[in-house]
Order: sequence, then C-alpha cells, then structure tokens
Amino acid sequence: MERTTVEKVSLWVKHAKVFNSYLKKFEEADVAVKGERFYYIDRKRELSFEAAEVLDAQGKYMIPGFIDIHMHIESSMITPLAMAECLAANGVTTIVSEPHEMANVKGVRGVEEMIRAGKDAPIDIYYGIPSSVPSTSEELETTGGVIDFPAMKGLLDHREVACVGEVMNYRQVIRENHLEISKFLDYVRAKRPDLPVEGHCPSLEDLELARFLYLGIDADHTEHDLEEVRQRLENGMFFEIQDKMLKPEILAYIRENNLYEYCAFVTDDTMADSLIEEGHLNAVVEKAVAFGFPLEQAVYCATYTPARRMHLTNRGAIAPGKLADFQLLEDVRHFCPALVFKSGRQIYRKGEKAERKSGYEFPRDFYESVRITDEQIQSLFAIKAPKDEGKVTVRVIENFPDCTQTHERLVEMPVRNGRICWQESGCILGAVFERHGKNHTVGIGFFSGSCHGEGTVATTYCHDHHNLLVAGDDPEDMASAVRRIVEMQGGYVVIKDGRILAELPLPVGGILSDHPAKEIGAKLKQVRLAMESLGYVHENPIMSFSCLGLPVSPELKLTNFGLIDVKNRRRVSLTVS
Amino acid sequence: MERTTVEKVSLWVKHAKVFNSYLKKFEEADVAVKGERFYYIDRKRELSFEAAEVLDAQGKYMIPGFIDIHMHIESSMITPLAMAECLAANGVTTIVSEPHEMANVKGVRGVEEMIRAGKDAPIDIYYGIPSSVPSTSEELETTGGVIDFPAMKGLLDHREVACVGEVMNYRQVIRENHLEISKFLDYVRAKRPDLPVEGHCPSLEDLELARFLYLGIDADHTEHDLEEVRQRLENGMFFEIQDKMLKPEILAYIRENNLYEYCAFVTDDTMADSLIEEGHLNAVVEKAVAFGFPLEQAVYCATYTPARRMHLTNRGAIAPGKLADFQLLEDVRHFCPALVFKSGRQIYRKGEKAERKSGYEFPRDFYESVRITDEQIQSLFAIKAPKDEGKVTVRVIENFPDCTQTHERLVEMPVRNGRICWQESGCILGAVFERHGKNHTVGIGFFSGSCHGEGTVATTYCHDHHNLLVAGDDPEDMASAVRRIVEMQGGYVVIKDGRILAELPLPVGGILSDHPAKEIGAKLKQVRLAMESLGYVHENPIMSFSCLGLPVSPELKLTNFGLIDVKNRRRVSLTVS
Repeated sequence: MERTTVEKVSLWVKHAKVFNSYLKKFEEADVAVKGERFYYIDRKRELSFEAAEVLDAQGKYMIPGFIDIHMHIESSMITPLAMAECLAANGVTTIVSEPHEMANVKGVRGVEEMIRAGKDAPIDIYYGIPSSVPSTSEELETTGGVIDFPAMKGLLDHREVACVGEVMNYRQVIRENHLEISKFLDYVRAKRPDLPVEGHCPSLEDLELARFLYLGIDADHTEHDLEEVRQRLENGMFFEIQDKMLKPEILAYIRENNLYEYCAFVTDDTMADSLIEEGHLNAVVEKAVAFGFPLEQAVYCATYTPARRMHLTNRGAIAPGKLADFQLLEDVRHFCPALVFKSGRQIYRKGEKAERKSGYEFPRDFYESVRITDEQIQSLFAIKAPKDEGKVTVRVIENFPDCTQTHERLVEMPVRNGRICWQESGCILGAVFERHGKNHTVGIGFFSGSCHGEGTVATTYCHDHHNLLVAGDDPEDMASAVRRIVEMQGGYVVIKDGRILAELPLPVGGILSDHPAKEIGAKLKQVRLAMESLGYVHENPIMSFSCLGLPVSPELKLTNFGLIDVKNRRRVSLTVS
Repeated sequence: MERTTVEKVSLWVKHAKVFNSYLKKFEEADVAVKGERFYYIDRKRELSFEAAEVLDAQGKYMIPGFIDIHMHIESSMITPLAMAECLAANGVTTIVSEPHEMANVKGVRGVEEMIRAGKDAPIDIYYGIPSSVPSTSEELETTGGVIDFPAMKGLLDHREVACVGEVMNYRQVIRENHLEISKFLDYVRAKRPDLPVEGHCPSLEDLELARFLYLGIDADHTEHDLEEVRQRLENGMFFEIQDKMLKPEILAYIRENNLYEYCAFVTDDTMADSLIEEGHLNAVVEKAVAFGFPLEQAVYCATYTPARRMHLTNRGAIAPGKLADFQLLEDVRHFCPALVFKSGRQIYRKGEKAERKSGYEFPRDFYESVRITDEQIQSLFAIKAPKDEGKVTVRVIENFPDCTQTHERLVEMPVRNGRICWQESGCILGAVFERHGKNHTVGIGFFSGSCHGEGTVATTYCHDHHNLLVAGDDPEDMASAVRRIVEMQGGYVVIKDGRILAELPLPVGGILSDHPAKEIGAKLKQVRLAMESLGYVHENPIMSFSCLGLPVSPELKLTNFGLIDVKNRRRVSLTVS
C-alpha cells in the first residue's frame, strides 16, 4: 500500500498489537506519538509519518503503562528515585504513594521531601495525604512528626497530591470523635468533594460500613471474604485488589456481575527483596490472569480504572491526547516488558542498565534522625519488678506465624533484688527506644511464640512511629545492636553471640536507603534469612517484627510508652498485680 | 420481622425499588438519608430508624436525580432559577451549563452573573468556561463581550466551574493558529490536566479527529453517522448522546460493544416551549428506552456516567455517602417523577405548585442592553447600489427547511436613483443592527428560500453575537419591529401589516426572561406559530431564524458587518461586480 507522509512526529511505533481500552481488545496498528502524548492510532496502517524515532514493535503487545494507586514507597525501604527506576522496569509508569511512614518520622516536612525526592523520577509519582499520623495518639506512642488538620489542609496545595491517604482508624471515625482526620474529612466534603479518599476497613460490614462510606471514604484495599467484597461493591466502594485478594470466589463475583469498572489492582506494600525477585503491580496482574481474570479486563484494571479513580484522566489508555505511557510485551502471560515509555520517552529497555537519576538529596537532618542516650540503653540490663523477691505475672506478647496480630499471654517469672529474671522464661526481652529526641522513653516488654527464640534483632523500621525496636535473649547483644543501628542512623541488624549476622542500613529518616533497590533487596533478604536462622517463623518475618510496635493492630503491642492494650486504646503495666 | 431502632436520620424512604448503579438492577430496599447524603441502603429491610420524615414509596422506583452535563440554559430563554424549577419537575438535579450566549452579550460579567443567578437554585448548577466568544473574530461580528485567555484563566477560580465549555472552532484549533482558546488549552493541559474539556466537532474524522483529541478535547455531543460515532468511542472520546442521535444502528453499536461507560445523555439546547410540553433530559432517556436502550443502562447513562465524566463523584448513585439526589417514579417507561429530592430535601411533588425561589436580580445594565440609534433604523429605507440606474447582481442568503446552513444565491435586482429596488425580487430584506453600543453598524442582506415570505420577524436572540436581526417585506413594519424590540429591551416580535402578531420580551441581556418558564414557553410558541403563518418553513423556525446571523455555520450569513462568507472567514459585498 502506498503511504503518504503527512507530518512530523517524535515517535512512530509500527507493527504493534495495540490494546484498545474502550473496546477491550488488541488491534493491529501503528501508533504515532508527538512529544508527550499519543497522536494517532493508525488502525488501517495507511499513513506515513516523518518520525524522529521509528520503533518496529515486530508484533509485540503494546499496553498502557501500569498505574498503582494504592501503595507506600517506604514499604520497599528505598527512596522515590530508586523506587521509580524499579517500577519502570516492571512497566509501572504512574503511582500514588502515601508517605505516612516518613510523615511519622518527619511530619509535613517528611511528606514534602518525599514529594520533592520524586520530582525528577522517570515515572509520575503522586501522593496521598497521610491521614493517620500518629496512628493512635501522642499518649500511646511518640512519633517524630504529627499531621494535624491544618497540616493536611496545607498539603492540598501540592499539585502532586491526588487523594486523601488511607483512613486507618476506621472504628473510631465512624463514632463521635474529635480526630483531626474527621475535621479534615468535613473540610474535604465541603471544599473538595471531587477528591478521592482512600479507606482501610477490614471486616467492617453493614451499617458500620455505610457509616464509613457516609464520610466520603469510598475505596478499600484491605483483605476480605466474599461477603465483605460484595457489600463494598454494591455500596459504591471502589475495590482495590491486592495480591492476597485474588481468590476464585471473588474473581467469579466480579466477572459474573461485570464489576471491572469499580476495581483496580494495587500493591500496597512491597518488600525490597520481593520487588527485585518477583516484580510489582505486574506480578499482581500476572497472577490475576493466571487465576482466571480475563486478560483484557486485567490490563484495564491496572491502567484505565486506576487512572480514572484518581482523576488522572490524561493517561491510562493508548488513545490520541493521552500521555504516551506504554510498554511493549513479548507475550501477555508474563508481564515483563521489553520496552517501557513514559510521556513519549523510553525509560526502560530489557537488558540495558538504566541510567541512574540522581541530584536530589534529603536534607541533612533526615540522615541524623536516630538519637538514643546511654541511659536508654542501660535500661536493658535491669528490668524492674514491683517487688524485691518472689514471682510476678508478666504480660507477654504472643506472636503468630500467619498474621501481625498478637495475643496477651501471662507468664510467671522469678524476681531477685527487685528485678525480673526473664532469662529462663522461654520469652525474649523486647524494648522500644524513643529515638526522635522528644522524650527518651523506653518501653519494655517480652515476646514469645513465633518470634526468634535466640539472638537479637533490632530495627528503626517499626510501624508506624519508627522508634527503635530491639528484641533478643542477651542484653549485651541487644545493646550492641542498638549502638550499631545508631551508627548506621537506622536500619536492621541481626546479632548472635556478639557477631553481626546481617544488617541493612536505612539512613534516610531511619527507614529508607538511597542505595539502589537491588542492593537493598539483597541485604533485606540476608536479614530475613538471618531472622529465620534464629527461629523466627512467619511468612514475612520482616513485616511481622516491624508490626510488634504497631498500636492499631490487636491485641498487645509495645511502644516507647510500654505495653499497649490495643482494643481498649490504653497503656497497661508489664506485670499483673 | 422485629426491627431495632438504631439511630436518628432525617429521611427514611421505605418500600422502594431502588436502582443499584453498580449491579445495574433494581432492588427492594429501604433507604435512610442523613442530612444531605444517603446514609444506608437497607436491602434486608431489617433496621429501623428514628426518622424526622418517613416516606412510604409504596413500591415506586427510586432512581438517582438526572445529570445533564452538556446544555445551555440560555437556549430556553429563561433565567437559571426558572430553569432549575422546570428541571426539578423533570427529575434533573444537576446540570453543567455553558453560558456562552450571555458571555457574548456581557463577557466575563455575563458568566459570573449567570453563576450568581444559579446559586440559590433548588438544583446544582455547574458551568463550563465559554471558550469561543466571539464565535469568530471582532472583524466579522461585534459582540457585547469577549472571553480571552486571561478571562478563561480567571474563570477557573470559580468552584462552580466543572469543565471547559465546548470548543467550537474545531477546524481552526487543529491547525497552526493564534486563538485564545489554544493558549487556554495549553494552559489547562499543563496546570489542570484533570479538567474535562467539551468538544464540538461534527464530521471530523481520522487524523483530524485525532488532532482534536490530541489537544485534550475529549467529548463530543454533535450529530454523527455510525462511522463517526465509532471513531469517537474507539479513540477514547466521551460520547454525549442527544435526542437526534438515538438511531438504531448507533444504539446497536453501543450495546454490542458494551460502551455504556463512555456515554451520557445530554440535551444541549431545549426551547422553552418544548421544555414545557415535552420535558428535558427525562424525555431523552424515555426515548432511548423506547428505542431499545436497556432501561438500567439508560438510567446509568443519565446519572452515573455524566457525574463521573465531570468528576462530580459525590453524586449519580443511590449509595452511602452520595448526595441524596433522587426521584420516585410510578413506572419506568415514563420518566415523570412523582417526587424529586435534592441533597435530601424535596424539591418537587407532582401536582403541587413549586415554591418560587427568588431574591436574585441581574444588575441594572443587563436590563439595558439593547441600544439602537435612529440613524441605524433609517438604513432600512434606502439600500444603496454601486450604480445609479440599471441592474445589480445581489448575493442572497438562501435558507432551507431542514438545517441551519445556508447557500449563496445570486439574484438580479433593478436599481433606481442609486438604490436597490428589492421589493419585487421575491426576496425579503434583512438587517443586523449592532446593539451593544460599540459601533452602531448595520449589516444589510436579503433572504430567500424557506424563510417567511411576508411580514416581519425581529429578535435580539441572534447567534452568537445577539445583535438585533430583523427581516421582512416592509421597511415600515421592520422599523416598528426594531422599535418594539428596543422598548422591550430584547426578545422576539412578529409583525404583519402594522399589527403585532406575537411577541416575547427577553429583557435580561436581550436573550433571557425572568418570568416563569411556562409563560415564556407559551409566548415562544405563539411566536413560532406566527412565523409559520407568515410562511416560515422549518422544523424549528425559531432556531433557523436565530442562526441566520451565525458566522460559523456555512455558507453565507449576515452580521452587523454585512454578509460573511463563512468558509473563507471573510466579509463579502452585497452586490457582485
């Protein structure tokens, strides 16, 4: 066929199987890109362009870049730039990240620096406004920063803000309360009713679910059974499907009721090592397809519906005028892109090393955020009892291999010279050191169950306050671990008999590293293996350990103020009188 | 079944067949409303509320209030408050109106006063930013106001603004140009990429259509054949379905490809009399269902998809947290609501007279907008020829009964004493008087074809510049008609043999009345019948006449600068030399 050259374009992709998001099918076509945006989808393949770059797709599948609208960069413990580099390689070209971890460390500045840190990224990074910082209150945990109502309001001015981040205290907000987030939700409904508000409401049902929706919180990404999923979708809640939710009965329900328009795939939290080994949103899509989610709908729910949910209406489809964010795939059972383009520019080619973006550095104080006194460390060596001699009944945090929730277990321990002799109890000692320099408190507790039975593990990655958590069988090793973490200014360390088995420095706010993801992933894996070698039994020991200090997840947790009875939202004493 | 009273709500609707927008089906349920928003959809009908108002729906159908996202209030020649009252009675609870008519008369102030005028309305009125005022340029027509780039930018600050109004000069914007709207589109893409931009692009196809979409203009509501509709939907253009587009082959295409998500019903222009006699968006929905559009999808495309298109995500469904905008229907073949609620408050009950909202008055100068000089009127009595005696060939505007486009027809007319003797030519005399007080120009032309062959018709409702258009067979009557219009400060008048056959005062900016819609509808109908009695042949003589001065609709039109050759965008002389 004779073709007439019509005009200049920047990129001309020829011979592709192009995904049409509206018809939900693949079409043989040539695609012209002009600058940042798609220009023309030539389904008849009859026009010719004078292109600065011609790309022969050789029949490859061309789909939009993936869009992950519910995730937390900090979960991967790397900085936005390093994260973006990884995401590009996995075909993800837009994310909405909620930086509540950094907000817990550095408050509004933490959020703003995360935004700044992502500005030069090869992909587009949008943010959710952290709505639950601290996760409970300043009476139950000490955080480095607090995001109150004025702070949330102020964050609305950033054009990178796409939504209100997940409202996590879901049982509180639906009752009479004076929470900062409730004031903010009132404000958003009145002034910005178009702004999406992300939710977090596992097990909420019926009238309680309606009360949550009534506040304008209309998405959920947590884990559910079919009945809960059904109630969410029928009541207009946007359903964000994470990996764990790819259950046959849920997929069948979505398919039978044609509910794809109200669903999107998300990752929520991705550990650095699984990011390197398994991938990201592409892994969720791949699993969904393998489990029977129709291919075209799976691509749709990873591109079009998430863009629309966040009102990022200038992307999510290969169509004239949309941002030229796309990936070329050899086959559509494995979402490992051969090439990835963002806004018309190539950002990844399989087998080629990515050009590392740099330039941004977090402010100095972000690298000096772990402050522990000697006096705090000394508290490991003498656990005071309420009596001088005899026995005490101690509240112990019982840990389980299949969840991050804990139980309270009562254990008798001997007392000598006014100190608890815990060493023979079968429990390990735990401590949370306030490290933001606010009150130098130390919370003391004991762990049993599926945690490591010997050796020491310590980290500043301790949800959500990110104080320093250490747990072990030997106070000397524990003190060394704390000192090592202070030296690294944050991270993980695993010690046994005075020897460091594994460590991962996280010097940015004590929770992130600015090294490449691959290096972090490898080191995190070493930490994981070391924890397992000490007897830690959990599908994700890193996550399990980091949640031992999370005072919103039941039942008994440890913060810098000591033991927290989560259900009753109060501190409780170490010993039962 | 025993019910437990759980709490106080403001309204409790019992025994309704409630439309579920997500499952696209009706469900037996009770619905609790708390203040402005839906609170709980009780599908099990097991809860009891202490309700300030209990409404027994007696099995009626309960559907969301209709949402019309592409319409122009001024087309109905009534003010926003009167319009809202009518819309409420038709089940329409939210509209997005584009006030480019008032903008042509009063510029930015016209837009702002329309916004202000709608603030107390019983329904929600949002606005599009007029993007084509004037429709051509100040060389081809004189308007009362101009909306340039800074003006458009300024209008973005109004929270009632939901979109950029239809970009009408579609052939110009896709070419190299210096249009104000092009500057504004660049700005919107850079700064507000989430803002919907409405289009207007009849017959645009293939690469030209892509060029239009490439600018970020991604909706169209104009008339098309199936191929054009197909191209729009496949390329991601939102398809706004007006009455005329309810063709079997188009409905079949949407159904077979399940494209409901990318469609919404709209009205665009509704004449005051058909508003009273036939209804509004409800009439379009009713016709669609009658023509085979599935009922549930028809309701969906008149509620959910239009809300989402405009990012009015707090409405469009009966679900917890959404605005309680709903209507109760006896049956779903006839969309004549028995009751209509907006934000939880009743705004219409069949058979009850609506309480008239008032309070708002347009500023004084809006009632003093028709300024014509005696000298202008005198020009009707002597149509100058380029010679003293003999014959001239005159360009005549040939009008047709089935469209608003015209042709140029050449007619020979005798000349005496330097004046054209047109009276025996079979043509009528036409004149457009600049009436905004800017340059007092008069454009002279002749009409033939399907216009009235005798008598005089005059109006200030003359697209889009809204200067005073008069056409007739007798200069004396024509002068009287002009004087009468000036007395009324705008409107329509039909005169025969010195006698007024019908008239409609439109004193607000010369294009609207602040009287009730019913009165305006009745008077407009009289004008329509009077025009027909004078021989005007058209399916809509009002629209046909008002478009004789519209210089964007081909081929030959009349403005205050005389004849305009629309295709070549230039003035042409009355006589051919």
